[in-house]
Amino acid sequence: MAELTSWSIELEVLRPSLKDNSGDFDRLIKALKKQTNIARVEGDIFLLKELPTILRKNDFSIKASIFRDRCGYFLTGLRGQRQSNFLGVAVDLGTTRYVISILDLEQKKILCEGNYPNPQVKIGPDILMRIHYAETPSGREELKKLIIDDLNKNLKELCSLYNLNLDDIVNIAIAGNTAMTHLFLGIVPNWIIREPYIPPINTLDLFSARDLGIEVSKSAKVFFFPNIGSYLGGDLISGLLECEIHKKEEISIFVDVGTNAEVILGNKHWLVACAGAAGPALEGGVSKIGKQAGPGVIDRVKYDPEKNRFLYTTIENLPPVGICGSGMIDLAAELFRHGFLDIRGKFVPDRAPDLFTTKDDTICLILVKRDHSGTKQDLLISQPEIDSLIRSKAAMYTIIETIAETVGITLNDISNFFIGGTFGSFINPESAITIGMLPDLPKQRFIPLGNTSLKGAIKLLFEPKCFEEICELEKKITYLELNVNQEFMNRFNGAKFLPHTDLTKFPSVKVNETLIPKGDQNA
Amino acid sequence: MAELTSWSIELEVLRPSLKDNSGDFDRLIKALKKQTNIARVEGDIFLLKELPTILRKNDFSIKASIFRDRCGYFLTGLRGQRQSNFLGVAVDLGTTRYVISILDLEQKKILCEGNYPNPQVKIGPDILMRIHYAETPSGREELKKLIIDDLNKNLKELCSLYNLNLDDIVNIAIAGNTAMTHLFLGIVPNWIIREPYIPPINTLDLFSARDLGIEVSKSAKVFFFPNIGSYLGGDLISGLLECEIHKKEEISIFVDVGTNAEVILGNKHWLVACAGAAGPALEGGVSKIGKQAGPGVIDRVKYDPEKNRFLYTTIENLPPVGICGSGMIDLAAELFRHGFLDIRGKFVPDRAPDLFTTKDDTICLILVKRDHSGTKQDLLISQPEIDSLIRSKAAMYTIIETIAETVGITLNDISNFFIGGTFGSFINPESAITIGMLPDLPKQRFIPLGNTSLKGAIKLLFEPKCFEEICELEKKITYLELNVNQEFMNRFNGAKFLPHTDLTKFPSVKVNETLIPKGDQNA
Repeated sequence: MAELTSWSIELEVLRPSLKDNSGDFDRLIKALKKQTNIARVEGDIFLLKELPTILRKNDFSIKASIFRDRCGYFLTGLRGQRQSNFLGVAVDLGTTRYVISILDLEQKKILCEGNYPNPQVKIGPDILMRIHYAETPSGREELKKLIIDDLNKNLKELCSLYNLNLDDIVNIAIAGNTAMTHLFLGIVPNWIIREPYIPPINTLDLFSARDLGIEVSKSAKVFFFPNIGSYLGGDLISGLLECEIHKKEEISIFVDVGTNAEVILGNKHWLVACAGAAGPALEGGVSKIGKQAGPGVIDRVKYDPEKNRFLYTTIENLPPVGICGSGMIDLAAELFRHGFLDIRGKFVPDRAPDLFTTKDDTICLILVKRDHSGTKQDLLISQPEIDSLIRSKAAMYTIIETIAETVGITLNDISNFFIGGTFGSFINPESAITIGMLPDLPKQRFIPLGNTSLKGAIKLLFEPKCFEEICELEKKITYLELNVNQEFMNRFNGAKFLPHTDLTKFPSVKVNETLIPKGDQNA
Repeated sequence: MAELTSWSIELEVLRPSLKDNSGDFDRLIKALKKQTNIARVEGDIFLLKELPTILRKNDFSIKASIFRDRCGYFLTGLRGQRQSNFLGVAVDLGTTRYVISILDLEQKKILCEGNYPNPQVKIGPDILMRIHYAETPSGREELKKLIIDDLNKNLKELCSLYNLNLDDIVNIAIAGNTAMTHLFLGIVPNWIIREPYIPPINTLDLFSARDLGIEVSKSAKVFFFPNIGSYLGGDLISGLLECEIHKKEEISIFVDVGTNAEVILGNKHWLVACAGAAGPALEGGVSKIGKQAGPGVIDRVKYDPEKNRFLYTTIENLPPVGICGSGMIDLAAELFRHGFLDIRGKFVPDRAPDLFTTKDDTICLILVKRDHSGTKQDLLISQPEIDSLIRSKAAMYTIIETIAETVGITLNDISNFFIGGTFGSFINPESAITIGMLPDLPKQRFIPLGNTSLKGAIKLLFEPKCFEEICELEKKITYLELNVNQEFMNRFNGAKFLPHTDLTKFPSVKVNETLIPKGDQNA
């Protein structure tokens, strides 16, 4: 009776004899029981069919892969011990992009990874449009088919590229936000966005890959990280597995920045979560040159006052084609520091007329001139784009502030500030503090973790005990619904300033008095 | 927290509210938990997809159908309380024929029944031939397809005949012998017939109807009664549910006569089972005029000494076309009583030359002359056919005797003698005793129960608590393997006489001294 340490288990099944007339499957369960604390496993018809042959071909020494949900354990694979290793697939199912990681479940090794645009973007770049589209059964089917077909295509390509066998894939773990999870499964998502904002399904049981149309082993099972609420999805639970704030004595916060800002605050004794629309400004898609991190995308920006121009780095050092969320935050911070943005976030073109232009009657900042740009066009940032960023940062800060006040702590009580999401890995905490997006805490408390959603899914596939952790997390988290919180709206209005109307909250940020417009002197 | 009394349950699901942000499915489980002792149910993807719509269309008053296996409970249907009733299907999966019963799971009513030849007979009338045919994957697939296609066709016809909806069928329970169950599922059956006679699967979990290719509701689940051994299948466990010997204080025996003679002896404290090949003589198929009970088939026979001819009754009073197992037993008993069969079971044509003829060098009894026969041919019974019957009756008696001796009781200690199988309903205990097939006990102890396999499956679909009974039965039954029992062979040889070499075992049977051939005077 030992704890399960791998989803793949080597089993020595007793041979049948006249003294032991139990069936092959019963003896397999007996072997499993002897080696683990699992008393019973659900057999898959496609495995049971071949069980007698597999046992005898391999002299009763076999390996089995299993997976589990709240109801119990399921057999997902069965073969000889020397046959190829069982594989798993971890998926971070994002609104804009999704990432696949193929894993060796036995060696606990990542074999390959792929990062792809979510093909549902075609129907609508944002979640709302897709949910509306999914109101009809045919719309639902279409959205589902888009992502499943794309996943199949990419899994196939990855496998052929890395000489892997699709049939070896037995366990799949998918972490996505609530809406993406529903759309992936074809479950009616309408109610997610209507008061009282109740997701149809929070806790998901294992599904057969074949029922979902995922073309891997016939007996493979798919696990979905559970949702906590309409705006707090499985990707956050998966992220928690990675940052482990629920295991620490001190208070930590985990912030996942995507289309929504999702925040979980707590320690080993309690966990509180909330989420709010942070706006897509940080994700790319809305700002014309805003992009997901990728080749040629600007991820760091500095203003050079001597030469009156912007210095920047791009991903893979290619000529700039756009700017990602972390670049936008850097840019806004630099503009504010040098007086090109006032405390309301409005451009101050008078201070450097050369840096600005007007396009379609809108004032724009020239970030990169066309002769340096990878697109052969000026890379411009418009005032509405900055406004959008300001709303996002205000939402983020307000969410963090609200959740802290709700549990009765100050922001300074937070020892670790884990930042998840691809975007989170590139963020410059100093810039984020300057614009009032993150609270004014010592820099070393900010810990970027990269794609926590994917990492948590990988962790589950390597460590079976994570399943119990997920169940505990689900029970432990108190979810605050901010969509109906009036206090939140009041705070949000204060946070729409740079860095904030209440400057005492940002002692490290130097605000140039001249940036405070006349009517706002006492703001 | 009440015991589950029906697989269909009406549920009042709490409405979502800002105070209760649990998902629709979680609230459904909560409602279930409130009304039953079920803490968790596995959701089917095809139901979860529509759950939000079903809940809201029906104002959160719904009904759910569930089913279970050893691992837990599964949701099989979901709809408004006023929508059509959930249906179940019970199947007795016989080697020669199978019977379907469609049930109303809510009203607990049998709606219709159909009785069909098992189309696998085409591949081989007996189990052995089919198992050999199933040694190749293609043979296995073919056998599986034959029965599944036929079942689908017949379910469809029954539904259209009785104005039922295939989509309302959510729970299916199938009771078959070990080999038929394996062949239905396409599971390698080879090992059933090889020492040490171990079936691949004894305990079967629920399978999705869609995975098996059964065309009913997409979310329907299929339960198979567990096997105890290679020659003691789910049909016997199902039969036990019906005759309930495991609930009685006194000792009873349950005998199911088909291709094999399967026997379970015991009471509420213990159960012992064994089985042996009874031969197909009683099932029809081997004797040329031997038939399953059906229109025109002779089921009762009496010899009229005055007119020197046979009186008989046929099913539905049609001109005779063949004879069923119970008819054969009657016939053999009458032949023996009137001196036309000696104690070795050999014809004594000298005693009534008119009754006999020779065909293909074989001596035959003329049961019905061509001018009275429904086939316009003489209905003949040949010596080899009688020999086959003798082997069957000897096997049956020996099995009963062996199992009683093994547990240390006399046959007279058996209070109830339940006879299952379609054949069992027609058997005349007096005739069976005369030929030494059943032990010489008072007639009232013999209780024919008809198709116990089907009846038990129906019972499970009406009474959820039967599931626990099945699990207990499975654990409680001790299975004796007779295939390797030498004592059995010795006893069998004694039982090949009419009624037996040891006449003290059959005090009620009068044996005419002249029937004992000279060399056997002291037998």
